[in-house]
Amino acid sequence: MTWQRRHVLATDDWSRDEIEQVLETTSAMVEILGRPIRRTPALRGRTVILFFAESSTRTRVSFELAAKALSADVTNITASGSSVEKGETLLDTVRTLTALGGDVIVMRHAASGAPYFVAERTDAAVINAGDGWHAHPTQGLLDAYTLRAALGDLSGKRIVIVGDITHSRVARSDIDALVPLGASITLSGPPTLVPSAWRCGTTPRGTTFEPDLDRALDGADAVIALRLQKERQHAGLLPSIREYARTWGLSEARVARMRPDAPVLHPGPMNEGVEIAASVAHGARSLIETQVTNGVAVRMALLYLLAGTPEARES
Amino acid sequence: MTWQRRHVLATDDWSRDEIEQVLETTSAMVEILGRPIRRTPALRGRTVILFFAESSTRTRVSFELAAKALSADVTNITASGSSVEKGETLLDTVRTLTALGGDVIVMRHAASGAPYFVAERTDAAVINAGDGWHAHPTQGLLDAYTLRAALGDLSGKRIVIVGDITHSRVARSDIDALVPLGASITLSGPPTLVPSAWRCGTTPRGTTFEPDLDRALDGADAVIALRLQKERQHAGLLPSIREYARTWGLSEARVARMRPDAPVLHPGPMNEGVEIAASVAHGARSLIETQVTNGVAVRMALLYLLAGTPEARES
Amino acid sequence: MTWQRRHVLATDDWSRDEIEQVLETTSAMVEILGRPIRRTPALRGRTVILFFAESSTRTRVSFELAAKALSADVTNITASGSSVEKGETLLDTVRTLTALGGDVIVMRHAASGAPYFVAERTDAAVINAGDGWHAHPTQGLLDAYTLRAALGDLSGKRIVIVGDITHSRVARSDIDALVPLGASITLSGPPTLVPSAWRCGTTPRGTTFEPDLDRALDGADAVIALRLQKERQHAGLLPSIREYARTWGLSEARVARMRPDAPVLHPGPMNEGVEIAASVAHGARSLIETQVTNGVAVRMALLYLLAGTPEARES
Repeated sequence: MTWQRRHVLATDDWSRDEIEQVLETTSAMVEILGRPIRRTPALRGRTVILFFAESSTRTRVSFELAAKALSADVTNITASGSSVEKGETLLDTVRTLTALGGDVIVMRHAASGAPYFVAERTDAAVINAGDGWHAHPTQGLLDAYTLRAALGDLSGKRIVIVGDITHSRVARSDIDALVPLGASITLSGPPTLVPSAWRCGTTPRGTTFEPDLDRALDGADAVIALRLQKERQHAGLLPSIREYARTWGLSEARVARMRPDAPVLHPGPMNEGVEIAASVAHGARSLIETQVTNGVAVRMALLYLLAGTPEARES
Repeated sequence: MTWQRRHVLATDDWSRDEIEQVLETTSAMVEILGRPIRRTPALRGRTVILFFAESSTRTRVSFELAAKALSADVTNITASGSSVEKGETLLDTVRTLTALGGDVIVMRHAASGAPYFVAERTDAAVINAGDGWHAHPTQGLLDAYTLRAALGDLSGKRIVIVGDITHSRVARSDIDALVPLGASITLSGPPTLVPSAWRCGTTPRGTTFEPDLDRALDGADAVIALRLQKERQHAGLLPSIREYARTWGLSEARVARMRPDAPVLHPGPMNEGVEIAASVAHGARSLIETQVTNGVAVRMALLYLLAGTPEARES
Repeated sequence: MTWQRRHVLATDDWSRDEIEQVLETTSAMVEILGRPIRRTPALRGRTVILFFAESSTRTRVSFELAAKALSADVTNITASGSSVEKGETLLDTVRTLTALGGDVIVMRHAASGAPYFVAERTDAAVINAGDGWHAHPTQGLLDAYTLRAALGDLSGKRIVIVGDITHSRVARSDIDALVPLGASITLSGPPTLVPSAWRCGTTPRGTTFEPDLDRALDGADAVIALRLQKERQHAGLLPSIREYARTWGLSEARVARMRPDAPVLHPGPMNEGVEIAASVAHGARSLIETQVTNGVAVRMALLYLLAGTPEARES
């Protein structure tokens, strides 16, 4: 199958075949990353611009190392210290980045939908590295890769996503990547932090809502804990962080309700002791560091599919 | 002709031949940037240090991508997070950058003349990426390249520069690059924002002042709009932004006064709706994105002329 | 001798042979840096992560250029703009950096001991680029290299370290690197800024305390001036900066008390006119820029010893 998409904005309209192609390409990249010299010339002479208007460590560095492993030229732009500070519009910034020769613009932005707006107006390929509450497609794909590596075929597997569903672009992108692969998703979290339509029965295809976390975890094949933004408390959506930890935190007792060896994922950065106990975060079931490692390979795969030079892609 | 200069501080004392040589080398770099793999080893093993004590996106990234396309090693230093914060003198910072092995120091600084001070005291080549109100020579050269690509020979061509002339290092460097190529410049802008000597008749060689923008534009071959620093209003130099836009902004009606197809340039970032209407900025006459693209090639040319390895320069 | 250490945390427990091996490897790196193309592929495909939780110019850039000269991939992480801002623990940050594929983590941190904590919990090699008041081992090694290049064998040589000994990780690391090479160290500085145990007789092995700077300098073979943190004054540890400069600053008259041509070192950034006169800082005895140049070579040597690919290391 030949890759057709120019951008990675969200995977909500991707076919199973497209997701499979990314995961297969990721396997090839994992192999490259296992070599003594982790380098391939697939993007030599191409320019990848990392435009992060919100702070980030792991996603930004993951893309940077992915691009460098493919031999691309990479440059970083953050909102502070850039002309975004001078009041330049997002569109002008991106037109400038394209005119500078950017082949791929990886962007994180506080406004949901910003990457769509940009993608329609640039010749560069755009990868969404997180836009507001909307989507974080590379996180969904790396979680899918990680879960499939751990569980095999995801058909019929039941995966719990727990936490602040409403505000989570990770939850949305996990659903978008996992459901087409046959997984069923159980959503759980405080009623104040789950979209009301979802709570009341009309959850997205392939997902159900279970307000009791213990019940959600019973016999599950895996769980993904979401990061709790502590500012939710001040917004009146949480009684207290301690209460949240007791009711929605992944303790050892809770994860033991899942199938034996069912893995625990978290997109990071973690609030240990809040949404996840330290012993779970660093315990035998944890795939949290594996997610980080796979993230580099998934981003290499996407960069390669979007911008690999024809010579390299044929070889 | 062999290149003689060690630094690019301003082009006010450059000969026409020197400017021509930069523009010809730029043409070669445009050709390299058009290749599938935009890379040449001309600066392999050389170190380019980008020292931006003022914020910048396009100029900094433009130099970074230019240096990388030439295979140089590049490192970024900003004032925040550096020892400049610790009160180190500019001279000591630059001596340190030289001792670290910097072959070229690209610097932007709020103090007019800072790059001269530095250039006299370092073995590295210094490129001025903007010093106070004084000069921004790479902008002048890229505007000259862009205008010549659009208009052909600039002899006898009349180019309007409009806006805050007094505080504009772009205006000064445009004059320095365009006049030696035979262009005549018409300056226009609010009397409060044009140096009084220039307003009263003694403009620089090759330039005239025309207080009426419409008259300045009549039959012109091109126009360069300058960015309005909004803080000028608070300094009492402008009645209001709206008034400025009405009197000095490039509207469609205004640019239609020029010769057919006469192009519109702007150094960016733009205040759309202030010094330039959005429809002009993104209209058919606009070369604003072309300027950005050419900026990378001009900077490659200068880096190559100043620091290309002998082997590469002979080839 | 085969290199055994996985990390460079401090050199207080290093043997003379280990220090010698670093200095010899540094000589090889100095030779590489003198070539027209300053590049060797010893770390190709390896990833060096520069994690600076405190601001720095010379040390960070020195490591960056060192890693690039060895052909490594390098990425920068600062505390601001990273997930450290989101409250992630140091340990989780470093686990993430390791999972991202970091082969070497170069870290600067305000907490003494932080690199030890990290080194016990990561598979990456850790280099301490300065931890609180504790250690700055690459500075010690580059000072040792610089002094040996200037003075030859350091056995029996007497080197003065003057200034704020208590709060100086440079002083500690200089002692750790110089004493095993046979040098004897004379410490001098205001009683309020020298650890009380040291002032009262129990100085570290190979060192003595001399409260009179002039006497300390008489016939010395070299002097290292420490940077004065001006905030010490506000802490009540200094009467005034002017008083400090008069009593403890290296004037021309003072350095003339040393042996002829005895060199002057300073780790930078300098407060000229405080701990060192401008005429001394930039005079004939000054090795301050040489230190900076040697710093790149020392860091190349350490990166090579810790992470050079076997192929490269055999060649």
